[in-house]
Amino acid sequence: MLVLGIDPGTATTGYAVIDSFQGRKKLLCYGVISTSPSQKMDERLLRIHEELNQIIEEFSPSVMAIEEIFFNRNNKTVITVAQSRGVLILSAALAGLQIAGYTPLQVKQAVVGYGGADKKQVQFMVKNILGLKEVPKPDDAADAIAIALCHVHSARMNKYTSGGQAK
Amino acid sequence: MLVLGIDPGTATTGYAVIDSFQGRKKLLCYGVISTSPSQKMDERLLRIHEELNQIIEEFSPSVMAIEEIFFNRNNKTVITVAQSRGVLILSAALAGLQIAGYTPLQVKQAVVGYGGADKKQVQFMVKNILGLKEVPKPDDAADAIAIALCHVHSARMNKYTSGGQAK
Repeated sequence: MLVLGIDPGTATTGYAVIDSFQGRKKLLCYGVISTSPSQKMDERLLRIHEELNQIIEEFSPSVMAIEEIFFNRNNKTVITVAQSRGVLILSAALAGLQIAGYTPLQVKQAVVGYGGADKKQVQFMVKNILGLKEVPKPDDAADAIAIALCHVHSARMNKYTSGGQAK
Repeated sequence: MLVLGIDPGTATTGYAVIDSFQGRKKLLCYGVISTSPSQKMDERLLRIHEELNQIIEEFSPSVMAIEEIFFNRNNKTVITVAQSRGVLILSAALAGLQIAGYTPLQVKQAVVGYGGADKKQVQFMVKNILGLKEVPKPDDAADAIAIALCHVHSARMNKYTSGGQAK
């Protein structure tokens, strides 16, 4: 199973593709899709769409695991992040991928073992689970890897369900 | 100039197409794109994308005027509305339309003449400006018409600019 993990954003969207086969997990690629605040919103969303399409074309993942975003009374970037998340979900759906949504709590529980884990603990486990020499950079890419790992874990736990449902 | 007006939403997206030629304005179509909360988010976003595509194919508007959405500390639907707005902007951009964003204040000022106007006043002016027999229903469609009229008005006011820029 090839899983595309996505940490949605507008300036920076983290992505990663993991191959999970018979309990072994291999990191095939990771990185970020970047757009500039000086670009118009339609240009930024087009770029996110096009870059995600390129990743999907190159690796042909069967599922996209994407982090849920939440209404936070103090987070004013939530609107632009949500606009990008809509574009990411549409792009994956147009390419025929299944889509699964996971909360930050679910990601931490799946990767570290408890939901109160901090960013460094998640990154340490990402490195160890995949047998990497270093923690992948930047943070958004490491987050995307954790989200993909969360789906692999959840898919094994719930073999008879389709995993989380994107909201 | 054919202007597509959009009032973004997830359950209900209002749309309207207005033809503006030498100061005359004609309403070509209006309505809503509806999705059900019982559908998965990717299915809802796909439907919004496909229905917008059909409207664009049928009328070939040159510009999409879409309402801005704002961070409101008490509005928990802002995330799903913003996801849809991202999809609407991407869909229009993929079809080659210019995209202009307007705030509710700008729409009221353009259509009624002052920003403190209420929904009924906006609807009354929409009906009068376009010479309609009745106020268009439902409200989201009437809002979309007002947004398209706002662009027509702004484009006349700012002949040498490209109008509002979608954020």
